[in-house]
Amino acid sequence: MKHSGLPASLEKQYHTIAQQFQEEHQSPIFIGTSCFGDWPRFFDHFGFGKSVVVVTNPQIRRHYASAIETAFQGSKYSLKIIDIPSGEQFKTMDVAQRLLDSFLDFKLERTDTVVAFGGGVVGDVAGFAASVYLRGINLVQAPTSLLAQVDAAIGGKTAVNHPRGKNLVGTFYQPRCVLIDLSTLATLPRKEMLCGLAEVVKYGAICNVALFDYIEKNLEAIKSMAYSQCPDIWQHLVTESAKAKTAVVTVDQKEAGLREILNFGHTFGHGIETAFNYRRFLHGEAVALGMAMASTAAQKMGLIDDLTKDRIVKLLQKLGFTMEIPEVGAPGILSVMASDKKVRDGRLRFVLPTALGKVEVRDDVPQEIIKQVIDAFAAKASYVAEEH
Amino acid sequence: MKHSGLPASLEKQYHTIAQQFQEEHQSPIFIGTSCFGDWPRFFDHFGFGKSVVVVTNPQIRRHYASAIETAFQGSKYSLKIIDIPSGEQFKTMDVAQRLLDSFLDFKLERTDTVVAFGGGVVGDVAGFAASVYLRGINLVQAPTSLLAQVDAAIGGKTAVNHPRGKNLVGTFYQPRCVLIDLSTLATLPRKEMLCGLAEVVKYGAICNVALFDYIEKNLEAIKSMAYSQCPDIWQHLVTESAKAKTAVVTVDQKEAGLREILNFGHTFGHGIETAFNYRRFLHGEAVALGMAMASTAAQKMGLIDDLTKDRIVKLLQKLGFTMEIPEVGAPGILSVMASDKKVRDGRLRFVLPTALGKVEVRDDVPQEIIKQVIDAFAAKASYVAEEH
Repeated sequence: MKHSGLPASLEKQYHTIAQQFQEEHQSPIFIGTSCFGDWPRFFDHFGFGKSVVVVTNPQIRRHYASAIETAFQGSKYSLKIIDIPSGEQFKTMDVAQRLLDSFLDFKLERTDTVVAFGGGVVGDVAGFAASVYLRGINLVQAPTSLLAQVDAAIGGKTAVNHPRGKNLVGTFYQPRCVLIDLSTLATLPRKEMLCGLAEVVKYGAICNVALFDYIEKNLEAIKSMAYSQCPDIWQHLVTESAKAKTAVVTVDQKEAGLREILNFGHTFGHGIETAFNYRRFLHGEAVALGMAMASTAAQKMGLIDDLTKDRIVKLLQKLGFTMEIPEVGAPGILSVMASDKKVRDGRLRFVLPTALGKVEVRDDVPQEIIKQVIDAFAAKASYVAEEH
Repeated sequence: MKHSGLPASLEKQYHTIAQQFQEEHQSPIFIGTSCFGDWPRFFDHFGFGKSVVVVTNPQIRRHYASAIETAFQGSKYSLKIIDIPSGEQFKTMDVAQRLLDSFLDFKLERTDTVVAFGGGVVGDVAGFAASVYLRGINLVQAPTSLLAQVDAAIGGKTAVNHPRGKNLVGTFYQPRCVLIDLSTLATLPRKEMLCGLAEVVKYGAICNVALFDYIEKNLEAIKSMAYSQCPDIWQHLVTESAKAKTAVVTVDQKEAGLREILNFGHTFGHGIETAFNYRRFLHGEAVALGMAMASTAAQKMGLIDDLTKDRIVKLLQKLGFTMEIPEVGAPGILSVMASDKKVRDGRLRFVLPTALGKVEVRDDVPQEIIKQVIDAFAAKASYVAEEH
């Protein structure tokens, strides 16, 4: 067998054995309400082994541990619930290693299952640990935060942070399924609902105008950030967002191309988060600001008209996102953006809207425009006041 | 979209979004001699980025660093060579983390490349680090030992050890290519050639009678363990072994089934290695003993006749493998086997020959036979003397 395409000069010097791998993963997403009682049946359906470790955080554990324990009573599964501390600062290799130790304590075998039941931190670090334990055991992503339900839990990314940056270590590892229980949104703090909503707006802006319109139309209900007051609206937002993310990541599982459009708002956003040491802005708030900034950059480059930019910026504002970078941090943003892992060959890459529901990846945004945009948003409330 | 196969009672309660992943990996194996000069052209062929980190060990570095440096002079690649200590005891998460730190020091981006240039330890730990750095960067497996060339470097397994056991943490991660330079066998210590040969015999025994015959026929030349004296024979052995491994792992990339036949000799072998704390037996020596033991178990169970068992045991003996377990360690073997990660649902699984070139996976070997086999091989040289 020959590896077609190898230069002839090499081909004759080497015995070549072609290796073609073909893999098929099914990783369905199930969206429902009050699901705990169904977990054992889902696990039966997937043919999981007898041990189940649920990794969660202390808050989620307090809310739901007894419901989960009840659900597994009398089932064939032996259940362990363990928690890891809440907060991005605990998304570390150390915590992942402690999980691996626990998996060994519980003698998890390859057919056994880890359920990542929590927000993005739990999903990332438990997902990472499950992906490297015995080279990967069954993983169920059961996201409880809006952000995790519409974004982090879908697409198979796992990660831990490194002292030098976020998500520098991780894997691509598809869960056996994603189990979204909308009811868990009822206990989610308002600020975290807002964070997730930034990603929902993102899907509208990058690939789904109907979703963008829907958010505009249902603004008053959504603004309350209360799941229980309008569960149908939240179900629609989560479902459409999950579909949008799925559509992108199934085409491009490993960030070879298309998946990059999901970074809309993230180049500026990560710059802002990092410049403020992840203290001042939650991820979603930074992304919202980043989307407004990217839209402004696109408008300055003539990719979109003022009206389109304004629709994006205004929707974010009306939802309650701040459109201001505290002046003190603004100068650092550009330099930290340059060290982001998404930089290729030293060029900053931006996802810019070209219309509502359409984006393009560009690495040719002039430095001057990047600086103007940062300045515009850093100028204490004056930007918004001037333009609106 | 519905996930077909979900029970109707669940299907109606959940919005289901099917996610179908399809992945195609090419991971060709190139087998040649004195390859260093070609590395930059291979890398051009694969479109690798400009930074290349070669991870190796101090011995290999001493032999080949200058040849590699010469090869890259004047190329577009910036080259770094780093080494990790030799020996299984350094196949740890700590060493992997130090590699990750180095990759960050060198500012490796996603398009850059890690070359695992060494034996199995280098391949496993550098492969693991490359697989989790930025969720995976280009990896080239360039195995230098016979064992790594015919086994460890092919199939995409990476691993580090855990204080509680070998290879408990790792990934399945296909290299962009496997680059086998047969010339490196010229500097391989005799004992390590022998180790690799155990796996070569294994491929013959499990799936390639012609290879088994070839080893028997060329026994005198092979016994010398000197690559330079008969390079064609070694090329044949490596090529046929690589083909055999490829044939198995491309069908079963993640150990869902077929791949388990590669564990022939490994259930007993791991037991022996562990019982002696990985000090007394090299992996290949333990596997050779394990194959003889598994063949004996198969014969006792009536799966193969005496003649077939004898051909396997005798070939291993003639090649120079010990067929004795020092009596002091024998009693511990059974208990350590039971804690192996290949145990499923608490049942010990053995790969047993059913003919030359054919094997079966069995989890029904009677305890009594397992004990008899261990006793037979533990009985100071008496086993071999009695039966032959």
